[in-house]
Amino acid sequence: MTGLDDLPLRDDLRGRSPYGAPQLEVPVRLNTNENSYPVPEPVVEAISKALAAELRDLNRYPDRDAVALRADLAGYLGHGLTGEQVWAANGSNEIQQQLLQAFGGPGRTALGFTPAYSMHPLLALGTGTRWVPAPRGVDFGLTADEAVAQVRAHRPDVIFLCSPNNPTGTALDPAVITAVLDAAPGMVIVDEAYAEFARPGTVSALAVLPGHPRLVVTRTMSKAFGFAGGRLGYLAADPAVVAAVQLVRLPYHLSALTQAAARAALAHRDTLLGTVSAVMAQRDRIVTQLRGRGLRVADSDANFVLFEVGGDQSVAWRALLDQGVLVRDVGLPGWLRVTAGTVAETDAFLAAMDKISGEGPSAPPSQPKGTR
Amino acid sequence: MTGLDDLPLRDDLRGRSPYGAPQLEVPVRLNTNENSYPVPEPVVEAISKALAAELRDLNRYPDRDAVALRADLAGYLGHGLTGEQVWAANGSNEIQQQLLQAFGGPGRTALGFTPAYSMHPLLALGTGTRWVPAPRGVDFGLTADEAVAQVRAHRPDVIFLCSPNNPTGTALDPAVITAVLDAAPGMVIVDEAYAEFARPGTVSALAVLPGHPRLVVTRTMSKAFGFAGGRLGYLAADPAVVAAVQLVRLPYHLSALTQAAARAALAHRDTLLGTVSAVMAQRDRIVTQLRGRGLRVADSDANFVLFEVGGDQSVAWRALLDQGVLVRDVGLPGWLRVTAGTVAETDAFLAAMDKISGEGPSAPPSQPKGTR
Repeated sequence: MTGLDDLPLRDDLRGRSPYGAPQLEVPVRLNTNENSYPVPEPVVEAISKALAAELRDLNRYPDRDAVALRADLAGYLGHGLTGEQVWAANGSNEIQQQLLQAFGGPGRTALGFTPAYSMHPLLALGTGTRWVPAPRGVDFGLTADEAVAQVRAHRPDVIFLCSPNNPTGTALDPAVITAVLDAAPGMVIVDEAYAEFARPGTVSALAVLPGHPRLVVTRTMSKAFGFAGGRLGYLAADPAVVAAVQLVRLPYHLSALTQAAARAALAHRDTLLGTVSAVMAQRDRIVTQLRGRGLRVADSDANFVLFEVGGDQSVAWRALLDQGVLVRDVGLPGWLRVTAGTVAETDAFLAAMDKISGEGPSAPPSQPKGTR
Repeated sequence: MTGLDDLPLRDDLRGRSPYGAPQLEVPVRLNTNENSYPVPEPVVEAISKALAAELRDLNRYPDRDAVALRADLAGYLGHGLTGEQVWAANGSNEIQQQLLQAFGGPGRTALGFTPAYSMHPLLALGTGTRWVPAPRGVDFGLTADEAVAQVRAHRPDVIFLCSPNNPTGTALDPAVITAVLDAAPGMVIVDEAYAEFARPGTVSALAVLPGHPRLVVTRTMSKAFGFAGGRLGYLAADPAVVAAVQLVRLPYHLSALTQAAARAALAHRDTLLGTVSAVMAQRDRIVTQLRGRGLRVADSDANFVLFEVGGDQSVAWRALLDQGVLVRDVGLPGWLRVTAGTVAETDAFLAAMDKISGEGPSAPPSQPKGTR
């Protein structure tokens, strides 16, 4: 039998495993920050109708530039944006891959402040871009001074900021974004996959776009819109950035079905985004409850919570799984990430946490260093 | 206003234009090798039903590995293939991009026999792979000796063969494929986007797969299946090749809607592929008719025909467009490519050809060098 080692695979891919959280069938899945609420029936009907209208002409290629969808996305984002400032792809992963193909690649460098979204370094690898992990500060924070120092030290061609950050959950102070923009020699990408869940008063990097043609804000419909299965990511930036990614995008990358389904979902955004406040309430409940149990917990502006279990986090991960609750081990020693879902899911998670506490090695530290 | 030149775009992208044929609204569109037949009503209903069943759970990520779809595709291909030997993506462009990310990339070389599918060099560019264009022989042919000589001269990490070739339309002798496989130091990709239209007796590279783990056959549902708007490309190869592309594929690259729609289309393949023989009849009619008018025409195993107009082909292209017929100028001096569609479309194309002939610079050569 032929193995991977028998093929002329790139050296930098040897020994690696495919990215992806385990897709396990368990009662409570809180590991991939999906929206736990199914698509409501009226929206199902609207999307179904929109899709049906495309099917007869599926023999034709879709609109390569997805003009109508981009206009709809701009309308949703507001901030005076138009479709010319928006680009869409199959998930924000593809958006960010296209950005690295245009502005990163061989001989260029991308930098991220870790821990952050673990796909960023993999996208760099996949596009031949050298990756520089720059550590975040105390308690996973990132000040303008810390960020600028790293930017000056490495002079990366592409910088990833993540706000709210994944896996920590905390949104960035806009002063960090503008300071990084001022110091950056190249492009600055702010990954706002979880923006809709931010606490009141949080400022989106969209507000910083005017006058900053090297700033790109990426978004997704996977989280707040509950549209993960539909795969729709997008960016907002100067029209010149859109022109740049059009040089590297695969022609007809976005199917007629994706475009139609996303447009129908956007037309029903009031209904779809109705789950956001419910999710935020559970998110805040998890933070409060875990802190009440003496655990360290990162501030969250997202639909998930990073919390400290102490010791080998994989032991606690397994113990929770044994209770039927699947959370995410992001490889951060002593910490786990849990998605905020429905009330019942939060109940199940908190009950599982209570059950596993005091059970040996997976127990939380008996003398916590204090909460945040 | 910010222009592309004001952004830190990669040097190798500067001055380029996005790939893509003009998307013009004209009565007769024969420029992108689409299937001219709309999806039949019973299949529309089946796909619609399959999509509707996915919509409620669109809040969940799709099956990252598209296991059920890959098994269906393997069943369609036959040759004893299983789902483990098949991989699917958003069009065969994405498939080939993933293959270049895994086996090409910085420091590596890909070779194609030109003229061939014009995306191959662009995919190389986009993945940082050095591209070597190797010329085809007399009348766009390619013998085993010619191919092997080029492979030995350049020792490319990835070789693209195209059978039937685009834009010439002619299928490869399988002896060329095995000779290239024997000589190749790396991977050999046979792009069979148009395989279903091949003339009787044509052998698919799928038959060569056993015992050749460095051979990859790529296919698409865009052409014979009339599923261009659905965006579904796939490959068949050794399971180790599938494992390799899984290292570089974007997680959840294939939406739940794409997977469901493609599966429903495959389940109705007898109906969908019912148009293939009709298209082949028009293809053969175009070849015969143009040769009857004294033009040189390449043998075609595809749903399109490459024919010589002589002189500056862009003049003839424009003259046909003025007659409401959009064909493809692939940049081959003196030649144009036309898609075989419905009887009415062929009628319109042939009438337009008659109309423009004898009209000065766009006229076919008065003394053709002979037909093929």
